[in-house]
Amino acid sequence: MAPRLVEVRQNILKHNDVVARALRARFDANHVRVISLVSSPGSGKTMLLERLLSILHKRHRVAALVGDLATENDAARLARSGAAVRQITTGTICHLEAAMVEQALDGWALDQLDFLFLENVGNLVCPASYDLGEHLRCVILSVTEGEDKPLKYPTIFNTADVAVITKIDLASAVEFDRAGLERNIHTVRPGMRTLAVSAKTGEGMGELVAFLEHGTA
Amino acid sequence: MAPRLVEVRQNILKHNDVVARALRARFDANHVRVISLVSSPGSGKTMLLERLLSILHKRHRVAALVGDLATENDAARLARSGAAVRQITTGTICHLEAAMVEQALDGWALDQLDFLFLENVGNLVCPASYDLGEHLRCVILSVTEGEDKPLKYPTIFNTADVAVITKIDLASAVEFDRAGLERNIHTVRPGMRTLAVSAKTGEGMGELVAFLEHGTA
Repeated sequence: MAPRLVEVRQNILKHNDVVARALRARFDANHVRVISLVSSPGSGKTMLLERLLSILHKRHRVAALVGDLATENDAARLARSGAAVRQITTGTICHLEAAMVEQALDGWALDQLDFLFLENVGNLVCPASYDLGEHLRCVILSVTEGEDKPLKYPTIFNTADVAVITKIDLASAVEFDRAGLERNIHTVRPGMRTLAVSAKTGEGMGELVAFLEHGTA
Repeated sequence: MAPRLVEVRQNILKHNDVVARALRARFDANHVRVISLVSSPGSGKTMLLERLLSILHKRHRVAALVGDLATENDAARLARSGAAVRQITTGTICHLEAAMVEQALDGWALDQLDFLFLENVGNLVCPASYDLGEHLRCVILSVTEGEDKPLKYPTIFNTADVAVITKIDLASAVEFDRAGLERNIHTVRPGMRTLAVSAKTGEGMGELVAFLEHGTA
């Protein structure tokens, strides 16, 4: 059984890569910068994105696609920022695939956008294997999740471009060890850029926005 | 492509169910109660299990199997409780399967155990589909993850027998809304039992231990 699964999986991944490459070419041709967010459930990904959309919306044309197994709650929540938002509900599929992104973009004028965010399903494992055509992949980790996560989920850290540490307003309540977390991140991915923010208090948000607007990973 | 994947997936699930049924029969024959833990990465699953093993070890014969993609850190950490612990490293597989449990039990005298804990890989999606032969499945959710999780990950809540809310020492810092979370849990799974604990302060641990020793789901 196992070899047959591997073969099917490889074909799916190969097919995904083809679609992702075409998407990236389309994003480039339309000068839209595409940023994906991956994390565990509950890292504060949607709240962070809500703040980012509100800030970026003032001076750029921004939109977002949001993946979840079920519910359209996040799209409704994010639409309050004024940005264009569409929900992708994946059913029982635990990650976004490039073809889902392609389908969700149907009818959207990409040349009218500066930034497009792709919020993946909350999962630190499976999204690692699927290129979505994004230019920048942010792995998001809250201070409450434990400093050992990069060692236990190395693939997602290896495929991401930048690590964003969320909920730093809770750092002292959970005795968060930033140096320890960064040591673990750099064990898996030497030199990876890290940024720390609180979407609740706004701490670090300016730096993150500047990085998304001007920085390279 | 999709139909072929579905077919392979169904065969794998069917095979898993056969192995899980055989495991459950073996557990029953040996009078060992098997409890599995599923959650997001960073919910405090390992710390909770560490405390449970320490408490239960004093009056029962307890053991644990711990699943992670990489590292044997958790097994080393849990072994400090004095309980017998084995790590299952799954590589790139995002969940435990019954055959992995069966293999990891090789050489263990099950009739020498009262309780066996199975700690799944941190993932709120994929573990839902795999029966491990356990008698009780606990879904674990920390107060920092957001009250909407049951609506967004309904399958894992539907396949679990009890919900354990962790890190309640942080409840006020994150303005945790227990009634709201329970409403969402009961939307997905009416009547599901919930317990709230802090492995750090010990709050609620006595009730959880009593439930595991004597309760039924």
